[in-house]
Amino acid sequence: MRAARLHEYTDDMSEALSIDEVDRPEPARSDHVIVEVEGAGWCQTDNHIIEGMWTDYVEQDLPLTLGHENAGTVVETGEEVTTVAEGDRVICHPVLPCGKCRPCRMGEDMHCVNLSFPGLTTDGGFAEALLTSERSVVALPDGVDPIDIAPHADAGITAYHAVKKAVSRLVPGDYAVVVGVGGLGHIGLQCLDAMSAARIVALDVKSEARELAEELGADYTLDPGSDDVPAEIESITDGQLAKQVVDFVGRDPTLALAPEIVAGTGEHHVVGYGGHVHEPAQSLVSGEFSYVGTLVGKYTELQELMALVAQGDVELHTSRYGLEEINDVAERLEHGEIEGRAVITPNA
Amino acid sequence: MRAARLHEYTDDMSEALSIDEVDRPEPARSDHVIVEVEGAGWCQTDNHIIEGMWTDYVEQDLPLTLGHENAGTVVETGEEVTTVAEGDRVICHPVLPCGKCRPCRMGEDMHCVNLSFPGLTTDGGFAEALLTSERSVVALPDGVDPIDIAPHADAGITAYHAVKKAVSRLVPGDYAVVVGVGGLGHIGLQCLDAMSAARIVALDVKSEARELAEELGADYTLDPGSDDVPAEIESITDGQLAKQVVDFVGRDPTLALAPEIVAGTGEHHVVGYGGHVHEPAQSLVSGEFSYVGTLVGKYTELQELMALVAQGDVELHTSRYGLEEINDVAERLEHGEIEGRAVITPNA
Amino acid sequence: MRAARLHEYTDDMSEALSIDEVDRPEPARSDHVIVEVEGAGWCQTDNHIIEGMWTDYVEQDLPLTLGHENAGTVVETGEEVTTVAEGDRVICHPVLPCGKCRPCRMGEDMHCVNLSFPGLTTDGGFAEALLTSERSVVALPDGVDPIDIAPHADAGITAYHAVKKAVSRLVPGDYAVVVGVGGLGHIGLQCLDAMSAARIVALDVKSEARELAEELGADYTLDPGSDDVPAEIESITDGQLAKQVVDFVGRDPTLALAPEIVAGTGEHHVVGYGGHVHEPAQSLVSGEFSYVGTLVGKYTELQELMALVAQGDVELHTSRYGLEEINDVAERLEHGEIEGRAVITPNA
Amino acid sequence: MRAARLHEYTDDMSEALSIDEVDRPEPARSDHVIVEVEGAGWCQTDNHIIEGMWTDYVEQDLPLTLGHENAGTVVETGEEVTTVAEGDRVICHPVLPCGKCRPCRMGEDMHCVNLSFPGLTTDGGFAEALLTSERSVVALPDGVDPIDIAPHADAGITAYHAVKKAVSRLVPGDYAVVVGVGGLGHIGLQCLDAMSAARIVALDVKSEARELAEELGADYTLDPGSDDVPAEIESITDGQLAKQVVDFVGRDPTLALAPEIVAGTGEHHVVGYGGHVHEPAQSLVSGEFSYVGTLVGKYTELQELMALVAQGDVELHTSRYGLEEINDVAERLEHGEIEGRAVITPNA
Repeated sequence: MRAARLHEYTDDMSEALSIDEVDRPEPARSDHVIVEVEGAGWCQTDNHIIEGMWTDYVEQDLPLTLGHENAGTVVETGEEVTTVAEGDRVICHPVLPCGKCRPCRMGEDMHCVNLSFPGLTTDGGFAEALLTSERSVVALPDGVDPIDIAPHADAGITAYHAVKKAVSRLVPGDYAVVVGVGGLGHIGLQCLDAMSAARIVALDVKSEARELAEELGADYTLDPGSDDVPAEIESITDGQLAKQVVDFVGRDPTLALAPEIVAGTGEHHVVGYGGHVHEPAQSLVSGEFSYVGTLVGKYTELQELMALVAQGDVELHTSRYGLEEINDVAERLEHGEIEGRAVITPNA
Repeated sequence: MRAARLHEYTDDMSEALSIDEVDRPEPARSDHVIVEVEGAGWCQTDNHIIEGMWTDYVEQDLPLTLGHENAGTVVETGEEVTTVAEGDRVICHPVLPCGKCRPCRMGEDMHCVNLSFPGLTTDGGFAEALLTSERSVVALPDGVDPIDIAPHADAGITAYHAVKKAVSRLVPGDYAVVVGVGGLGHIGLQCLDAMSAARIVALDVKSEARELAEELGADYTLDPGSDDVPAEIESITDGQLAKQVVDFVGRDPTLALAPEIVAGTGEHHVVGYGGHVHEPAQSLVSGEFSYVGTLVGKYTELQELMALVAQGDVELHTSRYGLEEINDVAERLEHGEIEGRAVITPNA
Repeated sequence: MRAARLHEYTDDMSEALSIDEVDRPEPARSDHVIVEVEGAGWCQTDNHIIEGMWTDYVEQDLPLTLGHENAGTVVETGEEVTTVAEGDRVICHPVLPCGKCRPCRMGEDMHCVNLSFPGLTTDGGFAEALLTSERSVVALPDGVDPIDIAPHADAGITAYHAVKKAVSRLVPGDYAVVVGVGGLGHIGLQCLDAMSAARIVALDVKSEARELAEELGADYTLDPGSDDVPAEIESITDGQLAKQVVDFVGRDPTLALAPEIVAGTGEHHVVGYGGHVHEPAQSLVSGEFSYVGTLVGKYTELQELMALVAQGDVELHTSRYGLEEINDVAERLEHGEIEGRAVITPNA
Repeated sequence: MRAARLHEYTDDMSEALSIDEVDRPEPARSDHVIVEVEGAGWCQTDNHIIEGMWTDYVEQDLPLTLGHENAGTVVETGEEVTTVAEGDRVICHPVLPCGKCRPCRMGEDMHCVNLSFPGLTTDGGFAEALLTSERSVVALPDGVDPIDIAPHADAGITAYHAVKKAVSRLVPGDYAVVVGVGGLGHIGLQCLDAMSAARIVALDVKSEARELAEELGADYTLDPGSDDVPAEIESITDGQLAKQVVDFVGRDPTLALAPEIVAGTGEHHVVGYGGHVHEPAQSLVSGEFSYVGTLVGKYTELQELMALVAQGDVELHTSRYGLEEINDVAERLEHGEIEGRAVITPNA
C-alpha cells in the first residue's frame, strides 16, 4: 500500500515526506484493529516531527509513516475484539495504550508506560491502512463522516482536554481567555462555550480568526498585534482578570501574559508549544497562579468530544488533500496558509 | 512604644532597621484588635523587603515597621468584636482582609481586593503592639506559648497551604518530594507526614537538615550537592517519579528539576522564590506537569494548622532574640547562620 | 409600616397572615442595611412555615413577618457599610451570616453558627422595609428590576446551588434528570443548560411544565403520571442511566426513583421536601449512588446567578400581587394554582 | 479439585456449602490467569449470598463456588499475559472487568458493564484453584504472605474505598466517625489514621472492639449500647459534629444517626448493609448532609492498599481454617463468634 514517510529530519517541508510502497499491516495481537484510513489530519506537530523537534522526548526510528489524526473504516480485527467489527466507522485515539499499567487503569492513556504512538513512534495514518487497537477506536455517531472529523483525533481531544480542566474551575461571572483561534483554538473555544457559562475573551492576530471566534461564541476578541492585552483584560473583567487562560499558541509572548492576565489561584494552560516559560518564581508566588502543562486527551475524552459533535456543539473547519499533495500541505501550514484544518485522504 | 522600622532599602543587613519610638496603635474600626506582641518571627521575606525586592509587587511607604509572623495577647478591641477579648492569646494571620469582597466571601483571604499586610504594606509586629483585626486572629489552644509558635503565622501556613494542595493529589504508593528542609520545609514535611500516607523524599544540601528530615518523617533524603537527584528519584520511585514536588527553595536549579522528577499530571509547587522558571513549553506539554505558584495560606488554614499543633503533629524549631538584636538576626539569616526560626520578643 | 405576619400555625391558608402596623427597622450594627422591599417572592416554604413544619428544625417566635425572597432599594446603612449606598438596587441573600465563624470564613453562609434567617427566624420581607446586612446584599446588574428577580433570592440560588454540584460531575455524553419543572425546577433547568453540555431529561406531571421544559433546554421530557420513568430513562440513556438527578419535588415517589435511574457513582440531589427517603442500605451499596441533601446556596452563588441573569441565561416566570392579597396567594399556591412564581410588592 | 459450593439458598449455615469435586479451571482467553488459592477470606456477604439476599441485585446460577477474597500463586497464564508469570504471588481484585467499556476506561472496575464477580456470579475461591484475569491480580510486595492478607481483596478495598472518599473531605481539626470496628471497620480505621490528620471517634458495642480501636488510632471510642452517641459527638466535637461518618454496620439504628451527628455539607458513607435509610427529605435538606452509597474499591485502590500494607500502616487480624471447616466458619460468623477475619486455606 502507499504511505507517506519521513526518511530524514529536515527544515525543507517541500520534500519532507516521500510516498513509499509498504506492506499492509495485519493484526498481531488479539486486540489489534486494522483501519482503512479515510481521513488523516495534518497537524503542526507533524512539522515539528519533521524538524526533529521530538527526538529529545521520544524514540523514533526512521523511516516512519507520519499521521496521528486518523479516522476511517474497520477492515480487520484481532480474534478477541468485541467492541467493533468490520465495516464500523471509527475515529482513532492517537495512542495505543497497554491497558494494564497503573496509569492505564486510572484512565490516563497518555501516561501509559508501554505506550506506542502511531505517527510519532510507530507507523501512522498517512497511508491506506493503519494498525491500531480496540483500546484506541471510538465508533462514530451515525451520519458523521470520518473525513470531516479526523482532526478531532488529536487536535480535537487536545483542545477538549485542556478546556475540560479549565471548565472545572470556572463559574458564571468568571472570564476565560482563549489564546489563538486556529486549528486547536477554534475547537477549544466551542467546547468552552458548550460546557460553561463563563464569558470568553479570544485573542488572535488574524482578523478572520477573531471573526470566527465571535461566530463560535467569544464574548470579546482582542488583537495582540495592536491591543494592549493586559490593559484590555483588566478593563473587560473589571479588574478581576481571567480565572483560566488556555494558550493554544505557546510562544514566548503568549506565555509571558500570565502574570498580568491570570487571576489569583488561576491557571495558564500550556497547550501550544515552541516558546519558553521564563518567569521569576516570585511572580508565580505573588500572583499565586500556575502554568499547567497539558497533553493529548484521554480515550474517554474522545468519547465525550464525539458526544459534543453528535449534538452539534462543535464544528470543524477542514479542507481535503490527496496523499500526493502532502508536502504541499506541510509547506503551506509552515507559512500559515492553511485555512482550518487540512485532512489527507489516502483512499480517496 | 518601640518599633523596628525600615527607613530605606539596603543590602546591608547590619543596619537595616532602626529602633524608633512611635505612637501605640488604637482601634479605628469596630472590628479592630490590638495585640501586645510576644513573639514575631523573622522571615526570609523580611530580608527581601529590606532589599526592595517587593516594590514591584506591592505599594510600600517608608518608614515601615516590619514583622508579619506575630503572636501575643489581645489588649484592646473595637466595639463590635465578639470572638476574642482582652487577655486572649492569639496568633495573627498575616493579612487584614476586608471580609466583604468576593475572594473574601470565598475564603480566599490572600486575594482580598482591599488587603492590607502589616509588615509589608502597613506597620507590622516588630514592635510592642500591633494593630490587627478580628478577622485575622486565631485563639491559641490551651498551653501553647505565643513565642513558640509565632512563625506559624506566615512560615507555617505558607508551608501548610502548599502541602495541603499537594496532599489532595497524593494516594498511598505515591512519592512526594520536599525541596529544602529549612524554616518552611521542616514544617511542610511534618504536615505532609501527618496528612498523607505517601512516601516522602527530602532534599537538602545540609547534612543536619537531612537528619532533621529523617526525624520528622522523611522516608528518603538526598543531597543535591552530591547526589544525582533525577537518577535517584527515578530509582527510589521505580520509575514512576514524584506525583508532587513542594519546592521551598525556589532557585533556578531546584525549579529546573521539574521536567526530570515530576510524574505526568503531577505538580511542582513553587513556594520559595529568588530564582526563575525557565523551561520550554514543550517540556510542560510532553511531561504534562505544572508549576503551581503558592502564596500564604488562608485564615481557615491557620486554624487547621493550630489543630495540628495542638495534636502534637508539628513541632517548630525556634530561637529567641530581643528587639534590639534585630539587625543581628537579619545579618545572620542572610548568611545562613540561623538554626530553626528566629523569633523577636519585643515585650520580653 | 405595614407587614404581613404569622400569629399562629394553621393549615387554613385563607387567614394565615394578618397585615399589621409595625415599627420600621433601623440599623443597630455598623454593617446593617435597610432595604425598601419592592418584590418579595412567595415560596412553598412559606406554606410549610405557616403549617408549623419548621419548628423542629429552627427556633421561631410568633408573631413573625414572613418573606425570605427579597429585593428592593437600599434606604439606610450602618456606619461602616462600604459596598452599597442609599439608592442602590439589591437582591437579598436569605440569611444574615456572622461573617466570623469557621463556616462563614469558608464561604458556607448557610452553615453560619450565628445565623439569622429573616422570614424564618426573624422578621422578613412581606413588609415595607427589611433589616438586613451588608453581608447579605448583592447589587443588581443595570437594567434588572428587583420585582422581576426577587424569587432568585431563595428559589433561584437553591436551584443554582444544587445544579452547580450536579454540573461538577457531568461531562458531555452524560444525562441529567430534572424532577419537577415548577418554581425552582424551571430555574435549575436553565442553569443546567447554561453550565453544562450534558443531555437533560425533565419530569413533570403537568403538560404545560413539560412544554416549558422543552423551551428552556430539556432534550427529553417525561410524564411520571403516565410514562414508565425507569424504563424510559434506561432507553433514552442506552442503559447508562442518569449520572445526576436533581429532585425539586422531594416526595416519596420521586425519592424512590434513585435506585432505578441513577448511574453507579451518581447522585440524587434532594432539593424539594415533604416526602421520605426509604431505601435498603443494600440498594445504595449495590448501586453505589448517593442521596445528597442540598440547602440554599451561598452568597457568592447569588452573585454567580446574577451573572447568569445579566447574560440572559436564566429567565423567571413571575406574577405580581399586592401585600393585601397575600393570603390569597398562600391559598392558591396550596392548590397548585399559581403560574410561575408569585411576587408580593409591599410598596407598589 | 475440591470446591465449597452453594446448591440452594438457606438460613441454616451449618450445612450451607458442600465440598464438591469439580474440574480445575483453565485459561479460555488470552488474559486469563489461574491462581492456586492459598487464602480465601470469609465475608459477611457470603452469609448474605447463602441467604439469597443478592438475588434481587445480580444473576446467580447454582451450584456456585463462593469466595471473593482470594490470594495465592499464579500457576497458569493466557498467552498474552505480560504483567504476571507462573510463581508470582498475587492478591485478586474481586471482579473481572472487561477493560473496554467506558466505566473500565475511567478506572471504575466495579461499574464495568460486562462484569463477572467470582464467588457471587461465577465460581469463586473456596477451591483449590481460581480462574481470574490479568486485569484482576496485583502482585504482592516481597515478604507478604497471601494467607495473611487475603481479606484485603474485598474487605480491605471496600473499607479503603469508603475511607478514601471520606479523607478527601477531611482537614486537620475535623472529626470523623467510624461506626463498627469489625472486619471492615478495623481496616478502615487504620486507613483513616494513616491518610488523614482528622480526629477519629470509633463506635462499637463490644469492649474488645473499642480497645482495638484505641490501639489502631481512634482518639475517642463510644459504646452505642450505653452512650448517648449524638450528645457525646456534640460534646467531643464542641458542636461542630462529624464531617464524615463511615458506617461499616449499615443497620437501621446506625443509619439513623446521620441527622444528629453529621455536620452540614458532610457525608454518611453507607458501607455495611442490612438495614434501611428512613429519613424525611427535610432532614437531609435542613442539615445539608448526604447518604453516600459505597461499593468495593477499584483495582488501583487495591494497589494503593498494598502500598499501605507494605509500609506497615495496616495490619489485619485473621484466623485460619481448612476448607472442610467452612460451614463451621459460616455459622460462627452468623453468631458473631469470629475474632478478626476468617481465612479459608484450600491448599493447606
